[in-house]
Amino acid sequence: MNRPDLLDQLARAAQERAQRGLHRRLRAVEHTAAGCCSIDGRDFVVFCSNDYLGLAAHPDLVTALQRGAAEYGVGSTGAHLISGHHRAHAALEQALAAWTGRERALLFSTGIMANLGVMQALLGRTDTRQPGLCLQDKLNHASLIDGARATAATLRRYPHADVDAAARQLAAQPDAAALLATDGVFSMDGDIAPLTELAALCRHEGATLMVDDAHGLGVLGPQGAGSLANAGLSQDDAPILMGTLGKALGTGGAFVAGSAALIDGLVQFARSFVYTTAPPPALAAATLEAVRLARAADDRRERLRHLIARFRTGAAQLDLPLMPSTTPIQPLLLGDAERASDAATALETAGFLVGAIRPPTVPQGQARLRITLSAAHRDEDVDRLLDALPHALSATNL
Amino acid sequence: MNRPDLLDQLARAAQERAQRGLHRRLRAVEHTAAGCCSIDGRDFVVFCSNDYLGLAAHPDLVTALQRGAAEYGVGSTGAHLISGHHRAHAALEQALAAWTGRERALLFSTGIMANLGVMQALLGRTDTRQPGLCLQDKLNHASLIDGARATAATLRRYPHADVDAAARQLAAQPDAAALLATDGVFSMDGDIAPLTELAALCRHEGATLMVDDAHGLGVLGPQGAGSLANAGLSQDDAPILMGTLGKALGTGGAFVAGSAALIDGLVQFARSFVYTTAPPPALAAATLEAVRLARAADDRRERLRHLIARFRTGAAQLDLPLMPSTTPIQPLLLGDAERASDAATALETAGFLVGAIRPPTVPQGQARLRITLSAAHRDEDVDRLLDALPHALSATNL
Repeated sequence: MNRPDLLDQLARAAQERAQRGLHRRLRAVEHTAAGCCSIDGRDFVVFCSNDYLGLAAHPDLVTALQRGAAEYGVGSTGAHLISGHHRAHAALEQALAAWTGRERALLFSTGIMANLGVMQALLGRTDTRQPGLCLQDKLNHASLIDGARATAATLRRYPHADVDAAARQLAAQPDAAALLATDGVFSMDGDIAPLTELAALCRHEGATLMVDDAHGLGVLGPQGAGSLANAGLSQDDAPILMGTLGKALGTGGAFVAGSAALIDGLVQFARSFVYTTAPPPALAAATLEAVRLARAADDRRERLRHLIARFRTGAAQLDLPLMPSTTPIQPLLLGDAERASDAATALETAGFLVGAIRPPTVPQGQARLRITLSAAHRDEDVDRLLDALPHALSATNL
Repeated sequence: MNRPDLLDQLARAAQERAQRGLHRRLRAVEHTAAGCCSIDGRDFVVFCSNDYLGLAAHPDLVTALQRGAAEYGVGSTGAHLISGHHRAHAALEQALAAWTGRERALLFSTGIMANLGVMQALLGRTDTRQPGLCLQDKLNHASLIDGARATAATLRRYPHADVDAAARQLAAQPDAAALLATDGVFSMDGDIAPLTELAALCRHEGATLMVDDAHGLGVLGPQGAGSLANAGLSQDDAPILMGTLGKALGTGGAFVAGSAALIDGLVQFARSFVYTTAPPPALAAATLEAVRLARAADDRRERLRHLIARFRTGAAQLDLPLMPSTTPIQPLLLGDAERASDAATALETAGFLVGAIRPPTVPQGQARLRITLSAAHRDEDVDRLLDALPHALSATNL
């Protein structure tokens, strides 16, 4: 017997990653106020959260969670199809469907589980004669890629936002049932997918369009209904919408919205829905309140647009390496992984928490600072960050 | 172009399932008291939840969630490695590690995500020269199977609880790095895995043992530390322990516990940990209280053992098709899917909510009623269920 030890292999791989300067470090933060936190007693303004509307600690959400706890207890006690689907879940699903203009919605515990479930139901069944085709933007979230890879479908990744390339990939397999999946807003780049063109392509080619709107929901479109509403696209244009609840909505979990037939199909075939404990009903009650707040939050969205413009104008004047994003995700492209880490460390010294995003999360040579803005930020927070950035970046050039 | 439509295919598959009597129906329940609920205004005693210790609506958990909401807000605001890992998560991880006698623990949003993450980190990396081997009990939870299938590892499923078969499968590939994964308590059968024998086999063969203790944690072993503690097995014997928090603990989420090196490896390579929003810190605060309650809940575990014995004695006297289980999961094996559905319907008429478990969740011809007991049940609840069962089962024989 010459069997390698799996745990030894894992430890060696972690060491190698550390040697390349890519070790991932887990640190506990303490939230101190909206948009702020402390770590080991040091205070920071947070420019890396996904709390785009500043709702995560909103008093109305806190109260809704507390009342939900009093009404429902904490755990759901079982899977949705057994004992775990409560009135609060059903009410939230109705609110999400109404908000996004779709017939029905179905809750999942996380966005990863929602994307996995869609792939399992559409591409992972064993009753079809030939495996399907799944086209994806190369910069899609990991869970869309992983979800498709876990099925027998052929996965083709087209260059970022390249509709013509997607069209060629579809045309090359005219007989395959096809899903085209894209992020609505790309999580590490902040740009918006060419949704109108992709919807037209899918209609023309008989493919099904799926949009992961984790970073668009609550932020874009009328009433914050997301990147599809922003583009004027309906359920007919984009039959599968996935949204997450732990970003602009400030709570946690995810959902898929679409036709009643789609949702029933997910109930039957999405293993990540069937074989998991339903999330706490009190969390659904808090999220119902979050939907109400987010729909009405035009002031917060206006505030966010103002901060985005302020940041971009200031950064352009400083000649910082902005990327073409109009959303709260405003990365600065630095290239080298070590440079991104050093810049984030320098910003911490100046009192700012900013994410250094390195390979494999982004492609080699495209490490960046992922700066995210929140309606909770003050103008002066942004101004101070802009003051600190040139020094933080120049420190990395030494 | 002759492209089939994915949504049409899905709808047809759902119709076919319905025609075979296997349609899955989503119904909203309303919890009315521990162990009870109502659906559409009708009251039921719940014999299908996983709230084994009756903690899901415990006032101390409710208070802990409410205080956590006041302290932390609702959403975590980001991924664990960015802005989402709070002091409450870190404290819970320490408590889980201490409880299960392991160096460290790492939180995941769900058991599916935890199992997926372990498989990704151990078997899904691309730095190894040859794909690993994953051995699994045929009755393992879907997420262990799906998780292994999503990697390049060779998956071999051995007959249920058959240690000799597992030994032959390992011996056949003496050069492959190997993971042997098993449920601690099997979710649909209720029996306990032969953990002592599997640990000895893994030690002898240089394989790594992973135990999914979703249904054992809180219920079995000293202080409810689970099926491994129950068998006297340490971290050395079973290096990877996965536990869930939405069953006996009465809250939600999951964790992996093991050596510091294992946990660091998961932080580096488990995509289901890295690329997801951390669960709400208030939920972690509630779960910390649940761990305290569960460790001290010898009275509830004693109560549960009493109810299990009472149910099994009564069911044996009635000649009901009991399965060999000593845990709160007490299935009655009926065989035919329609028979299981009809029996569950008859029990509903009598005021009991019991899960009819049908293919594909269990193998063809092994449909069953999955009766689960909870410390929240009264003796008379069990006695009344026993009174109702013969009639409910005979009704299905007509």
